[in-house]
Amino acid sequence: MPQTTIDVLGIGNAIVDILVETDDAFLTSVGAVKGAMSLVSAEHQRALYNKVGAAVEISGGSAANTLAGIAMLGGRAAFIGKVKDDQLGDVFGHDLRAVGVAFDTRAAAQGAPTATCLVLITPDGQRTMQTALGACIELSPDDLDLSVIAAAQVTYLEGYLWDPPAARAAFHVAAEAAHLAGRKISLSLSDPFCVDRHRAGFRDFIENHVDILFTNEAEILSLYETDDFDRAVAAIQPRVAVAALTRSEKGSVVVTPGEIFAVDATPVDSVVDTTGAGDGYAAGFLHAYTKDRPLHECAKLGGVVAAAVIERIGARPPTDIAARAGAL
Amino acid sequence: MPQTTIDVLGIGNAIVDILVETDDAFLTSVGAVKGAMSLVSAEHQRALYNKVGAAVEISGGSAANTLAGIAMLGGRAAFIGKVKDDQLGDVFGHDLRAVGVAFDTRAAAQGAPTATCLVLITPDGQRTMQTALGACIELSPDDLDLSVIAAAQVTYLEGYLWDPPAARAAFHVAAEAAHLAGRKISLSLSDPFCVDRHRAGFRDFIENHVDILFTNEAEILSLYETDDFDRAVAAIQPRVAVAALTRSEKGSVVVTPGEIFAVDATPVDSVVDTTGAGDGYAAGFLHAYTKDRPLHECAKLGGVVAAAVIERIGARPPTDIAARAGAL
Repeated sequence: MPQTTIDVLGIGNAIVDILVETDDAFLTSVGAVKGAMSLVSAEHQRALYNKVGAAVEISGGSAANTLAGIAMLGGRAAFIGKVKDDQLGDVFGHDLRAVGVAFDTRAAAQGAPTATCLVLITPDGQRTMQTALGACIELSPDDLDLSVIAAAQVTYLEGYLWDPPAARAAFHVAAEAAHLAGRKISLSLSDPFCVDRHRAGFRDFIENHVDILFTNEAEILSLYETDDFDRAVAAIQPRVAVAALTRSEKGSVVVTPGEIFAVDATPVDSVVDTTGAGDGYAAGFLHAYTKDRPLHECAKLGGVVAAAVIERIGARPPTDIAARAGAL
Repeated sequence: MPQTTIDVLGIGNAIVDILVETDDAFLTSVGAVKGAMSLVSAEHQRALYNKVGAAVEISGGSAANTLAGIAMLGGRAAFIGKVKDDQLGDVFGHDLRAVGVAFDTRAAAQGAPTATCLVLITPDGQRTMQTALGACIELSPDDLDLSVIAAAQVTYLEGYLWDPPAARAAFHVAAEAAHLAGRKISLSLSDPFCVDRHRAGFRDFIENHVDILFTNEAEILSLYETDDFDRAVAAIQPRVAVAALTRSEKGSVVVTPGEIFAVDATPVDSVVDTTGAGDGYAAGFLHAYTKDRPLHECAKLGGVVAAAVIERIGARPPTDIAARAGAL
């Protein structure tokens, strides 16, 4: 098997976040589901945007956040995702490349603009996301460079990519290409509502294609339609080589066919903004994994990166994350 | 004289800031003048952008920051400035209108994109600005709605607008229209290097058109080519009805033909980011001024808003600024 030239390749929605402070009354008045990521039309997002206060724009996207974190930790990172050839697409591409992520997906010349996620921040620090998928719906199997997939030790897919149908097809192509080359496929379940939209597809994909699964408690409970965490653990255990289940301040639980163990969360000085905590966990975990570290070290580093993300505004790790993580 | 329907109308460059952390070595390597606003070509800005890390986008522009502050304090605020009809122009317009500033300048359909300012933040919290004027160079006297100027108690002009030549012409037209209607003209000197570029023009404009001048210490010293603050105060005293000279932690000095007095700075918990402090001071001062408050109260409120801006990242006041300022 040829050597890998990439540690982790991410495939995900290419999104610029629009962050704005609001309150619970506003969420109620517009019927937004608090704490969730909802897909909305461009028109609906625009109507909301016109009602909220001044905002800040910052590159986002779940898998993109993870790959930025891996590159910042020193890993060899690449990303596939679809922007339009517009200003926000330029911002998105800059912010990935600026931290060392290879990003060569051709921007769409026509059609919908680069995707944006209106992030409504309530005083309790929770984020309610209203995403217009924009150019992301253009991502198709044609955008996959199979040689890049074959060169990556792990190809990491975000569950949110199940929403745009052509991207879903790309998932299956990517999984087959990765396994043909003897590489690993990792999936993040992204969001309990996303699991709800695509439960059967996720279950099938996990069983047949996923080597490393990332999920939080709400997502795995939704996947197996149970309210019992242990039952969900038992359901996932025989189905993937590695599952990392994050449980917020309770840390994470790593499940393999042979063992189940918990790893404590990294203490956090103060929780400022939990967005991107799961993306950061996946970054730390996969970075250690591709450096052949044992799984408890992977989970530990996942917790370190998640904690660093939580302590500040924004979904990507701070610039000093490599120093905080220590040498691998 | 008909009643005013606007308290303050601002005319300025319409800019979106691109904030990025860097270090002194980088500033040296690219020959940037630390702490200053330098005008650069779009190509040069792009070359710098390609060398820096991940960034955050946030609406800026000096006068626009001030008018946002006035609206947030409860004042009737309007703004004239030129964006292009593009995504960042949309962001700029949203962020003004979202806080209650009337902004109706027609966006340019063609030509350069919306102006951006690459803000290079060093670990000491200083900001070095590299601005590509983009669509701002399209602002011309044709963009002035003279009925709006006539309806505004104060028309506030940023010195930076001296850079794009057509905008400079608009300044003179605005000043004449305001005075014909019996209204006031206010000017901010913006930046010592800007004063250096346009010293003769500024001196002439101040003497003949300005009622209320905002300047910091470095700018007024540059204007009168002296290193003696008292000499600069003596030079400005006979030339404008009101000059407010800001001196960072030393507070401000208000100068009228009849008196000179100092007002202490508002204590600041911790200086996080001084960008926009002058813009905030002008917001507080002008808001009190248009509510017919005595000048020492104007200077005091200027200090309150400046302090609020300094305590956080970004150049516009926090959402709770009206509460912090108290009722006027």
